[in-house]
Amino acid sequence: MTTHQFQPDHYHVTIGSHEPVLHIAPGDTVITTTVDAAGRDEHDAQATPGGNPQTGPFYIDGAEPGDTLVLYLRRIEPSRPTGWARAALAANVVDPGYVPELPPRDQVIWNIDKTQGAAALADTSTSLGAFSVPLAPMLGCFGVAPADGQAISTATSAEHGGNMDYRGFGPGVTVYFPVFVPGALFHLGDGHAVQGDGEIVGTGIEISMEVEFQVELRKGQRIGWPRGENATHIFTAGNARPLDQALQHATTEMARWLQTDYGLDAVGASILLGQCVEYDVGNVFDPAYTMVCKIAKRLLPAK
Amino acid sequence: MTTHQFQPDHYHVTIGSHEPVLHIAPGDTVITTTVDAAGRDEHDAQATPGGNPQTGPFYIDGAEPGDTLVLYLRRIEPSRPTGWARAALAANVVDPGYVPELPPRDQVIWNIDKTQGAAALADTSTSLGAFSVPLAPMLGCFGVAPADGQAISTATSAEHGGNMDYRGFGPGVTVYFPVFVPGALFHLGDGHAVQGDGEIVGTGIEISMEVEFQVELRKGQRIGWPRGENATHIFTAGNARPLDQALQHATTEMARWLQTDYGLDAVGASILLGQCVEYDVGNVFDPAYTMVCKIAKRLLPAK
Amino acid sequence: MTTHQFQPDHYHVTIGSHEPVLHIAPGDTVITTTVDAAGRDEHDAQATPGGNPQTGPFYIDGAEPGDTLVLYLRRIEPSRPTGWARAALAANVVDPGYVPELPPRDQVIWNIDKTQGAAALADTSTSLGAFSVPLAPMLGCFGVAPADGQAISTATSAEHGGNMDYRGFGPGVTVYFPVFVPGALFHLGDGHAVQGDGEIVGTGIEISMEVEFQVELRKGQRIGWPRGENATHIFTAGNARPLDQALQHATTEMARWLQTDYGLDAVGASILLGQCVEYDVGNVFDPAYTMVCKIAKRLLPAK
Amino acid sequence: MTTHQFQPDHYHVTIGSHEPVLHIAPGDTVITTTVDAAGRDEHDAQATPGGNPQTGPFYIDGAEPGDTLVLYLRRIEPSRPTGWARAALAANVVDPGYVPELPPRDQVIWNIDKTQGAAALADTSTSLGAFSVPLAPMLGCFGVAPADGQAISTATSAEHGGNMDYRGFGPGVTVYFPVFVPGALFHLGDGHAVQGDGEIVGTGIEISMEVEFQVELRKGQRIGWPRGENATHIFTAGNARPLDQALQHATTEMARWLQTDYGLDAVGASILLGQCVEYDVGNVFDPAYTMVCKIAKRLLPAK
Repeated sequence: MTTHQFQPDHYHVTIGSHEPVLHIAPGDTVITTTVDAAGRDEHDAQATPGGNPQTGPFYIDGAEPGDTLVLYLRRIEPSRPTGWARAALAANVVDPGYVPELPPRDQVIWNIDKTQGAAALADTSTSLGAFSVPLAPMLGCFGVAPADGQAISTATSAEHGGNMDYRGFGPGVTVYFPVFVPGALFHLGDGHAVQGDGEIVGTGIEISMEVEFQVELRKGQRIGWPRGENATHIFTAGNARPLDQALQHATTEMARWLQTDYGLDAVGASILLGQCVEYDVGNVFDPAYTMVCKIAKRLLPAK
Repeated sequence: MTTHQFQPDHYHVTIGSHEPVLHIAPGDTVITTTVDAAGRDEHDAQATPGGNPQTGPFYIDGAEPGDTLVLYLRRIEPSRPTGWARAALAANVVDPGYVPELPPRDQVIWNIDKTQGAAALADTSTSLGAFSVPLAPMLGCFGVAPADGQAISTATSAEHGGNMDYRGFGPGVTVYFPVFVPGALFHLGDGHAVQGDGEIVGTGIEISMEVEFQVELRKGQRIGWPRGENATHIFTAGNARPLDQALQHATTEMARWLQTDYGLDAVGASILLGQCVEYDVGNVFDPAYTMVCKIAKRLLPAK
Repeated sequence: MTTHQFQPDHYHVTIGSHEPVLHIAPGDTVITTTVDAAGRDEHDAQATPGGNPQTGPFYIDGAEPGDTLVLYLRRIEPSRPTGWARAALAANVVDPGYVPELPPRDQVIWNIDKTQGAAALADTSTSLGAFSVPLAPMLGCFGVAPADGQAISTATSAEHGGNMDYRGFGPGVTVYFPVFVPGALFHLGDGHAVQGDGEIVGTGIEISMEVEFQVELRKGQRIGWPRGENATHIFTAGNARPLDQALQHATTEMARWLQTDYGLDAVGASILLGQCVEYDVGNVFDPAYTMVCKIAKRLLPAK
Repeated sequence: MTTHQFQPDHYHVTIGSHEPVLHIAPGDTVITTTVDAAGRDEHDAQATPGGNPQTGPFYIDGAEPGDTLVLYLRRIEPSRPTGWARAALAANVVDPGYVPELPPRDQVIWNIDKTQGAAALADTSTSLGAFSVPLAPMLGCFGVAPADGQAISTATSAEHGGNMDYRGFGPGVTVYFPVFVPGALFHLGDGHAVQGDGEIVGTGIEISMEVEFQVELRKGQRIGWPRGENATHIFTAGNARPLDQALQHATTEMARWLQTDYGLDAVGASILLGQCVEYDVGNVFDPAYTMVCKIAKRLLPAK
């Protein structure tokens, strides 16, 4: 149960079977840093080229294909006083005929005040005036190496996680990933101080982060898609286009989970999901969209 | 400001320019009843053939194309002691390869206890055992007559509303509809005692209802899609397939609303939506899917 | 086996259970006219408001729900010397980011030369210079009244046919429609002198037509979607969004057809379709897209 | 202008920046072999694990990011007497409710007779009886290494090509690929003796091949998606889900091509595409679907 301090000196814009930067054991904790989506660090200096550069990968000793990696997101904390975002809705989230009415995709700066727990627009001359929102830090892109030697761009997402841009992936959340390669090879990056559902301007408030996470392994427990758990819900994430297919993946994964772990049969899982399911929209900007399927823990049979 | 008691004696399975059952004035309140999706009434008797039969239409005096109908959903209350639902996930909400694992689409009965405010599975022998959920009544299908003499099936939805199956359409909510024909011709039906996001078993807990609503008109205010408002949020609903397109409609409608009514320009609306938008999933079962785009009122500029 | 000459004096912009304009018997032939999509007639005069106005409906004596209407398209001939089209790709057929590069949706006039069998751009000063294409007349929107009292806009399509904009619906083709209401109630309009796949500028070369068609009935033969037949192929049309779903409808309908009418079982139909199917794209512009699934007749088992 | 004989001894199931197996110069020809999708060679022996294993990559001297690789497919010839296919429509190409009616995904053997130019079902006891189709060999999966160190599974496709399963990629066709990495790194495999549009049983007639191809470079000519050319048409391929998006990619790429190379402006390109475009469906089975946008050469302005 070691705690590792790890300072990255290089980054990856694919999630794949890269050389591990550190070997860690189940139970270990890692305290590390991530640069922002553009590759800028805690000093707002260009540390690496942009494109959601990832810290890692971390090799989890004993992890093998068919296992589940358990990831406890202990802390995700902005590490500099400003973040940036885009100022225009993405062309793919509005009606095609409305696209010509969109403003330019300029950059907007947000001031991050950790004492107040708020992000405030630096420019108070927009039509929003003085405008601030509560900090809600999260990781936009993180995951494990995919199977078969694939190296998947950090622009997109799939069964291995990746650029899901789901604002539910914040501190205090447990995430489960299927393990596809020995050591699992966990990568992380693309922190957002705040993000709306869907990441519909193509960014959250992009910022460098300090991150603390702990890992565990569930040997021989095979899952199909990223899963998660917070204080109130269990959830599954499906990644695909169109959103309909992402929803199908997430719903199927939840239907399986309820049957393998919660003592329900297909009828029980259907009845529960039918009247009680909740969906959250992850990104609808990236090549693969993300849909999250949730069930409140209070509704679950005792495990 | 009359209050009308209206007892229907016939119903429609399209929303269209049918003969009005009642003329009402802006400000008036109507207390009426709806049968369930299968056409069964408060005595669980077959009142009319199934298919989301609608009460109405109500002719709102003075409503003309280009106006907005304001609908206050004052009360939506189950009017009999049992509702029914399906026991299997719909084939279109799971991975195509998982379809053969779905159970039969049997009917499940739920007991409705208004005193306890709960719906309980009548059959306690499923894998869920004794299982109940809080009542959260809503209207699945309601709307106004569409343009050009269309009569649109109550199986689906479009700009005029219709079968949106969004669980946010409950008591206390204000709904705005574009008016396409003289009198607006408001229809309502398809009450659900409870429903999960997406209506993914193809039903909520289907039940007959007592409904009280009040109407207003906003003359000359033209909107594109159904809008709504509750204690905490304003929202827009887009109806289409795939879900991506429903989201585009809802997002575009919200971007317009923020600019016409809340003093934002395109940049301000984009920044606000980008970091603060919330999406809810309406139905993902019907021919047209429904996506709801929401903004918290506390984030809005003063009107 | 009467031949009817029918001159319309009114039109419909929905396909529905409108008052029939003529009763005809199975085996009868009708010679009639259609106005163009904008409601302009053979004199280029505004005969009726635009929106794919339909001639009809024709009541086919003896047609009942569950039958199949057989429609022989004998002749579809442009009835005036010019047609019109749009000059810009539709926003929904290009990448969202490319939309701002599209030109204005101006109208383009084409000269129709039936002697030469060609349509030529009237304006020879575009970057295409003097440009002509062979005439290939077709009906963009035609179909039968849908079930349950629906009146479906001629902007869209569904099981009943409608605005499919498939260039395979030309002279010499046999079309099969499911019958949903007594008399079938056949409507037709929206002729195109020429049209590319997909109708991707939102129009073909829109023109008024003289149309000759003959009808038959197949009593008690129930089909699910429009089907067709030409000299070389049988085909099915699916109408929905996204195109994936249109393709699912068309493929499923063809799989059924091969099994009910051509002596194949599910394996035989799968093998045949797997290695020999051909798809044509109908419209990808309208609210519902159209995909056509085809099999060459020479590959079919003898019936 | 060397002709290289290359016999592979290993294969890749991703397309990426793998160690080149051979350096070749623009103008050179390569004669090589591919194993079938399951990794079986000309002796029907298991040469490598399955999953569309690729021969290569070939390093084209002088190719740099921003260039276009020109690939002449000179010969694609089945190299053994039998191929295999699946016997059931894929679950994702039929209506979700039809999935339970699909037969098992058994393997079907086809006898390949190059003298007769035909593929015949080995088992004449299916409902198709004695059934044969003309040989039409093609490559299902081939392409160049993608950017940014990605290694993309041969199950799918993107801007770099990959598993497009388009039956237009046969002998005599010229294919253009964008170059993303030095040397382009061309991979090829997944030959089909015959395949229907869409690859809707999930396979063509899978077989090992002898392939002869020649390469050229167009220095500094940047394209966005795979393009091609045969005796009668030029075409572009878009790869994505849903099919709507694949069509958007292909149409946008063609609109650009017409403007950069054929002297048309946006209006001219729109008019031409609007009335003359043809679409072919590549695969609708893989994670990314493929749509091909074509224009007949006889309609093009002189270059």
